Amino acid sequence: MQITQEERDSVYKTIFARRDVRREFLPDAIPDDVLKRVLTAAHHAPSVGYMQPWDFVLVRSDQTKARIKSSYLQAHQQATEMFASDKKETYQKLKLEGIMEAPLGICVTCDRSRNGPVVIGTTAKPDMDLYSTVCAIQNLWLAARAENLGVGWVSILHDDVLYDTLNIPQDISIVAYLCVGYVSQFNDKPELEKLGWLPRRPIDDVIHVDTWQPTPKEP
Amino acid sequence: MQITQEERDSVYKTIFARRDVRREFLPDAIPDDVLKRVLTAAHHAPSVGYMQPWDFVLVRSDQTKARIKSSYLQAHQQATEMFASDKKETYQKLKLEGIMEAPLGICVTCDRSRNGPVVIGTTAKPDMDLYSTVCAIQNLWLAARAENLGVGWVSILHDDVLYDTLNIPQDISIVAYLCVGYVSQFNDKPELEKLGWLPRRPIDDVIHVDTWQPTPKEP
Repeated sequence: MQITQEERDSVYKTIFARRDVRREFLPDAIPDDVLKRVLTAAHHAPSVGYMQPWDFVLVRSDQTKARIKSSYLQAHQQATEMFASDKKETYQKLKLEGIMEAPLGICVTCDRSRNGPVVIGTTAKPDMDLYSTVCAIQNLWLAARAENLGVGWVSILHDDVLYDTLNIPQDISIVAYLCVGYVSQFNDKPELEKLGWLPRRPIDDVIHVDTWQPTPKEP
Repeated sequence: MQITQEERDSVYKTIFARRDVRREFLPDAIPDDVLKRVLTAAHHAPSVGYMQPWDFVLVRSDQTKARIKSSYLQAHQQATEMFASDKKETYQKLKLEGIMEAPLGICVTCDRSRNGPVVIGTTAKPDMDLYSTVCAIQNLWLAARAENLGVGWVSILHDDVLYDTLNIPQDISIVAYLCVGYVSQFNDKPELEKLGWLPRRPIDDVIHVDTWQPTPKEP
């Protein structure tokens, strides 16, 4: 099946317009058919040995979200102490999640024992199942953007609170907690770039031909 | 920026038509502008703390590919021994890579110390930088599909051969070796599904609402 030039450009537009959303969530409900399309796109990610190791736990209860938010605040406070003093103040001011504001949370997990003990393609790279789950997350993120839905990945969160609040068995690995919802706007650039935290690296710095070439550490 | 319904459908078409390509590669060269677009899409993936930890090493030399292929064959033989006897014969017959056939290899790496010792968003989830790199890989994969280029992720490969042949420093993590090229055709379904190795899981089995519900292990 051929992809036309116009279709290709729609894919690029979506990739370049995708953002990690924290502060622009609207409370509007996500229609079931829209959510089903987004999750179906996630489910069509590549997976090692066709393992499809992912699960998606939908979080809509405000009570559950409040427990997750409270755990985030603890993890965020711990993180603050880890930054050098010149960055600490800026870090504290950053808005890094939209747990309560987003109408939907999605916890994405990986069942590492799905389909038995030996999985094609994981024998030399044991983390391939986790990587497959991340491929599903990126499919979800782009499909959501194509539906004009924002997604934010909250990684400043210890897994315990998700195991506890969502009753996830301990043999399941937690990969992500995503906030999903319609937004007031999508920023034209990543927020950390706009705030001057870090610039976008020049593309030529990340491409090496035939052999590794050292690139500047600080662009 | 709004994505129209037509643009959205192009994104879904690309997501559903993406395949892990092993046997259909053509030797046709990939034009520089096409490759640059694909890598730029990868470079616009989300990254934790805007770290952009990825690098892409392009592999075009047949001699380098031959060394990587030889290492694959060893890892593949080791893997064969790990399968139970009823699956071993089928496994041996599977074509799981296109290292020599694809005109381009891309080794994707993660520089875990890029931008200093403390990175926003990795303090509670230390593997977020590896996951960001996988998001870049999935962007690359979809952009390639939108350019009608096939991609195959070869994970039956020990990292040593990539460190050695591509002179990658030991403090850089290797995430993937991808084969990239135009193809004779894209399969309508994943090859492992067509061959009856595993079926696609029903989408409802991977969705949980509010709390984890056990789903059948063997669909």
